[in-house]
Amino acid sequence: MGQEQIHQPFQLVADGSITTPQGFRAGGLHCGLKKTTRYDLGAIVCEVPAAAAGVYTTNVFQAAPLKVTRESIGADGMLRAVLVNSGNANACTGKQGEADAYEMRARFAEAISVSADQVAVASTGVIGENLRMDKVRDGIDRLPAGMNATAEGADDFCQAILTTDLVQKMVCVKLELDGRTVHVAGAAKGSGMIHPNMATMLGFVTTDACIGGEALQGLLRRATDLTFNMITVDGDTSTNDMLVAMASGLAGNDELTSEHKDWAAFEAALRYVCEVLAKAIARDGEGATKLVEVKVRGAVSDESASAIAKTIVGSSLVKSAAFGADANWGRIIAAAGRAGEPINPDTVDIAIGDIVTLTQSRPVVFDEEVALEYLKGDTIHIYVDLHMADGEATAWGCDLTYDYVRINAAYRT
Amino acid sequence: MGQEQIHQPFQLVADGSITTPQGFRAGGLHCGLKKTTRYDLGAIVCEVPAAAAGVYTTNVFQAAPLKVTRESIGADGMLRAVLVNSGNANACTGKQGEADAYEMRARFAEAISVSADQVAVASTGVIGENLRMDKVRDGIDRLPAGMNATAEGADDFCQAILTTDLVQKMVCVKLELDGRTVHVAGAAKGSGMIHPNMATMLGFVTTDACIGGEALQGLLRRATDLTFNMITVDGDTSTNDMLVAMASGLAGNDELTSEHKDWAAFEAALRYVCEVLAKAIARDGEGATKLVEVKVRGAVSDESASAIAKTIVGSSLVKSAAFGADANWGRIIAAAGRAGEPINPDTVDIAIGDIVTLTQSRPVVFDEEVALEYLKGDTIHIYVDLHMADGEATAWGCDLTYDYVRINAAYRT
Repeated sequence: MGQEQIHQPFQLVADGSITTPQGFRAGGLHCGLKKTTRYDLGAIVCEVPAAAAGVYTTNVFQAAPLKVTRESIGADGMLRAVLVNSGNANACTGKQGEADAYEMRARFAEAISVSADQVAVASTGVIGENLRMDKVRDGIDRLPAGMNATAEGADDFCQAILTTDLVQKMVCVKLELDGRTVHVAGAAKGSGMIHPNMATMLGFVTTDACIGGEALQGLLRRATDLTFNMITVDGDTSTNDMLVAMASGLAGNDELTSEHKDWAAFEAALRYVCEVLAKAIARDGEGATKLVEVKVRGAVSDESASAIAKTIVGSSLVKSAAFGADANWGRIIAAAGRAGEPINPDTVDIAIGDIVTLTQSRPVVFDEEVALEYLKGDTIHIYVDLHMADGEATAWGCDLTYDYVRINAAYRT
Repeated sequence: MGQEQIHQPFQLVADGSITTPQGFRAGGLHCGLKKTTRYDLGAIVCEVPAAAAGVYTTNVFQAAPLKVTRESIGADGMLRAVLVNSGNANACTGKQGEADAYEMRARFAEAISVSADQVAVASTGVIGENLRMDKVRDGIDRLPAGMNATAEGADDFCQAILTTDLVQKMVCVKLELDGRTVHVAGAAKGSGMIHPNMATMLGFVTTDACIGGEALQGLLRRATDLTFNMITVDGDTSTNDMLVAMASGLAGNDELTSEHKDWAAFEAALRYVCEVLAKAIARDGEGATKLVEVKVRGAVSDESASAIAKTIVGSSLVKSAAFGADANWGRIIAAAGRAGEPINPDTVDIAIGDIVTLTQSRPVVFDEEVALEYLKGDTIHIYVDLHMADGEATAWGCDLTYDYVRINAAYRT
């Protein structure tokens, strides 16, 4: 990521977390929804009402917590907290599921002494089973005492939102706005069911910037389209995806609007946070051993480039070849060709890392040993130039491995 | 299949093959495109000009043989033969690839003493490498001598079109038309890259029915939409897919048109042949251990049902659960919900075999042991009823296994 940061109007905070922005506490614990002692309940709390924004799954079946969170953010665009459980998605759980989501919201609101509509809730895990509310209630009552503004609290939260994820995903950047230091941080969980349009993906952004809820919503939507909606693990989109942002305003900058001179800088910082999390989710896809990044340029539009990039990065054959370190550009071109987008079949260039494999749609002889060495690495870059117009897009995914099958063949058992 | 045949206007010919319809010979041999001694060149020849029809991949990148075959069938709607090689797809091979496909056509036409535009050519295998034409030429010259009208010749052809397929796929049915016995037979290869809109799938239908090329084209197109285009192995669509039908007319029935009283019976026979082949391809998908059949009813239209059925059967999570014998209806509903089709989230029923798992979108308690027993079988039926209108469709696929990954991680090497 080093190179990309050189011209960025923000700096990475090496030991930063979601509690680095002023005003936020976080925590997590084991309440009993997961069979092991792994954490399964966590929360982020803001000490002042935070401007809030949310982006949700496009799946027809939306889990109960999404309805509740929409209502909370919709009430006045402000949040004081977000409560998350893992181990159970509270999806396809009917009226009881809805009642449970509302009860979670109300009970946690009471525990931290705020009104219910200032709390968002999110769930991830198995679909179609009702929550064991006795465990959840007990957890909610114990949670506030352990929350704090340190990196430890943030770590506990990150652990509590994981399901089959292997590693925690967190990032924090800072930038100067009106002479004040503003932080933007984020945490996420992903793994399976990751696909454009939000997947079993939960993301949480905290910032101490002063910005209104509507402005934040616009920026979050745009950042999502270029980051979280550009990753795919297996083409499945979950019932529970949600990205929530909270801005405490405590940094004391002038309120950010599109007229603010550093509006673009703040947007870049937010987008960077989302991109780091999105790539981390892709890299940590179920069973994945490497990150695959596909850049398409020369398409008739950015949307067209986006569709082609996502089709390539989502192809099971391309993903298997990535796992096998096979420079199989034939599968790349075949995937591009079925994306349903305009392509001139005679003008396509493809490179895998620095290795040019196709020029003007004709194979280029390359050193298979060099390609193999490159493909054995933990990040694979695929470049496709269609030479038609200026449309470009980047998508991220991972390889398809034995472990993906193992994990998903036995998820419930 | 037993039950389905009871009311069918045709009978299965137990030992039938693509050479059972009158007028057809077939054969295959090893010419050297595959590394082992497996057959890699085959042909079907008709002793009279046969009315012909073709359906082709929708991939933007179409392999050279498709261009040549389109020309042959387009010339006068008649064919005398189709020549097929495996081991090399002759795709993304530029001008040389086109020249090679034309040369294959011309050389085989000469070898069997017909004009070049009466020969179709098809290829399957690795993309982006030019054919070793010395091997192909030698094979073409030797091929006609070994062709015959027996089941052996048909078997040799079936072997010659396989790539990573494990089993040959062939079927033959007969029906009475105007007091004459008419046969409809087919052979196919599939395996990876199988997805709606034709995949690395080659299909060949022979019949001795008397029918014009245009009428045959219409029937073949319709049958394809309901069968070959309803299967998916991994969501990838190949550059080389092709389905070619030849009708010798030697059965002596009155010419089949939509006015013929047995038009529907013939269509049913043709569709059955395509369905048997399509299901065989799905069952023999790369690494597959079982066939998954998804029936969707109660959708707003057949097209909508079709999109939902294909999304479910193509879901990596559903496919992994099928492999793991996991009655994970949550993944089925999540897949349905992202198909982009109208669904009432409160009225969905789902059954896996006889086991009802969801009624009116609410989980039903079922015996996990019974479900496990059922899911261990070699065919899994998934039923989804949306209770919205009368749209229905059936799609077929297979499970996602360790072997799929193994096969595709190392295909070129």
